[in-house]
Amino acid sequence: MTRGRFIAFEGGEGMGKSTQARMLAESLRESGLTVTLTREPGGTPGAEAIRELLLAPPGSGWIMEAEALLFAAARADHVAHSIRPALDSGGWVICDRFIDSSRAYQGVAGEMGDDAIMGLHAFGSAGLMPDLTIMIEAPQDIVSARLAERDGDNSDAIGGRTSAYHAAVNEAFRDLASREPARFAIVDGAGSIEDVHRRVLSEVARRLGASE
Amino acid sequence: MTRGRFIAFEGGEGMGKSTQARMLAESLRESGLTVTLTREPGGTPGAEAIRELLLAPPGSGWIMEAEALLFAAARADHVAHSIRPALDSGGWVICDRFIDSSRAYQGVAGEMGDDAIMGLHAFGSAGLMPDLTIMIEAPQDIVSARLAERDGDNSDAIGGRTSAYHAAVNEAFRDLASREPARFAIVDGAGSIEDVHRRVLSEVARRLGASE
Ligand SMILES: Nc1ncnc2c1ncn2[C@@H]1O[C@H](COP(=O)(O)OP(=O)(O)OP(=O)(O)O)[C@@H](O)[C@H]1O
Ligand SMILES: Nc1ncnc2c1ncn2[C@@H]1O[C@H](COP(=O)(O)OP(=O)(O)OP(=O)(O)O)[C@@H](O)[C@H]1O
Ligand SMILES: [Mg+2]
Ligand SMILES: [Mg+2]
Repeated sequence: MTRGRFIAFEGGEGMGKSTQARMLAESLRESGLTVTLTREPGGTPGAEAIRELLLAPPGSGWIMEAEALLFAAARADHVAHSIRPALDSGGWVICDRFIDSSRAYQGVAGEMGDDAIMGLHAFGSAGLMPDLTIMIEAPQDIVSARLAERDGDNSDAIGGRTSAYHAAVNEAFRDLASREPARFAIVDGAGSIEDVHRRVLSEVARRLGASE
Repeated sequence: MTRGRFIAFEGGEGMGKSTQARMLAESLRESGLTVTLTREPGGTPGAEAIRELLLAPPGSGWIMEAEALLFAAARADHVAHSIRPALDSGGWVICDRFIDSSRAYQGVAGEMGDDAIMGLHAFGSAGLMPDLTIMIEAPQDIVSARLAERDGDNSDAIGGRTSAYHAAVNEAFRDLASREPARFAIVDGAGSIEDVHRRVLSEVARRLGASE
């Protein structure tokens, strides 16, 4: 059986990752592929339990080192118990956030450094990388307007950080994408959900040869 | 203010660590010292929450990599929010298990390797080491008899592993102690609780100059 393909969605808060990951999974399923749609932090019972600790810390807040270790632990569980088995059986995996979120949020904006974050990933998940990482980018005023309409708020322990922190995250994503153009597709997140979905499908077709 | 001293108790299951840590803390308090008595995994709200995930995994069990990352995360929280502040304010810290348990349980018996475990500790806790590590060692038949009398059982996700695993842990502790004789005091755990306590006090006095 051929190894399936692994696609991650990345980008700052509210860029449209979850919406587009869901739509891509539907399209690929309609074209006959077996698709696992999953997310980080989370995706398995163990990793979802760690997610809760990350978003609502039981104490006075995690130091950044502990946060990075918890993300690496959640990812190790997720990769071992969900992503790798799905890929090994020939399925496609679409993941809402993956290692590049750790690099941007903890590595750059959290100042842990990329080598440290990639070192934890090498240890926990044997350094598994997506075949394609779709980075959605939209102007901040569009994103803010959408988030104001969305149910719930972003005031968890990570989403609720300063705008300077989130600006550093967005800048870090751009930098990561520019350094690995073969792995990253930067998709314009402006316009309707359908507009963005068509851009995503076209990148997937062009880069992974999936039928549009 | 002078930096306080950091003493860890180590050893396999049921050797008497918790009993002796408590007794040493009492003795040092009686001699006028400020003592923080704490334990791993745990010791802070964040680390105690991670402890629960470690001892009762929500999914099908952690892979050893995730387990090692979770221990490192718990320790980072514990060191940052409890151990370092206590030491910095001149207090003594007595900890029931610390980094050498990770080295023995995940590094050796769990086959993650000592460099990996120490690397996670360097990242999470700046590599903090105890000033003195008291390794209690008692013959397995004595320990088994004591554990049979103790309330509760050892059947959590780690305590409940095979006897081969726990034999490897005990062997690893002996090896760690023999490689760092200046930091480790090996204390015979046979005899009464008071017998062992006197041996512990004498090691502490000899090595750290605390009054007996
Ligand atoms: N193209 C679009 N046009 C209008 N609204 C959109 C568009 N894409 C997403 N939205 C809406 O914007 C909000 C944010 O989208 P979504 O939750 O998919 O983003 P996200 O990147 O997953 O966010 P988070 O970082 O918080 O997980 C949602 O309410 C979603 O319905
Ligand atoms: N010297 C002793 N003589 C008799 N019983 C003892 C002695 N030391 C400890 N015990 C008893 O043996 C049991 C194990 O001791 P303790 O809980 O202190 O070990 P531990 O090393 O902390 O175990 P664990 O690895 O499970 O945390 C307890 O019931 C304790 O009361
Ligand atoms: Mg989302
Ligand atoms: Mg104990």
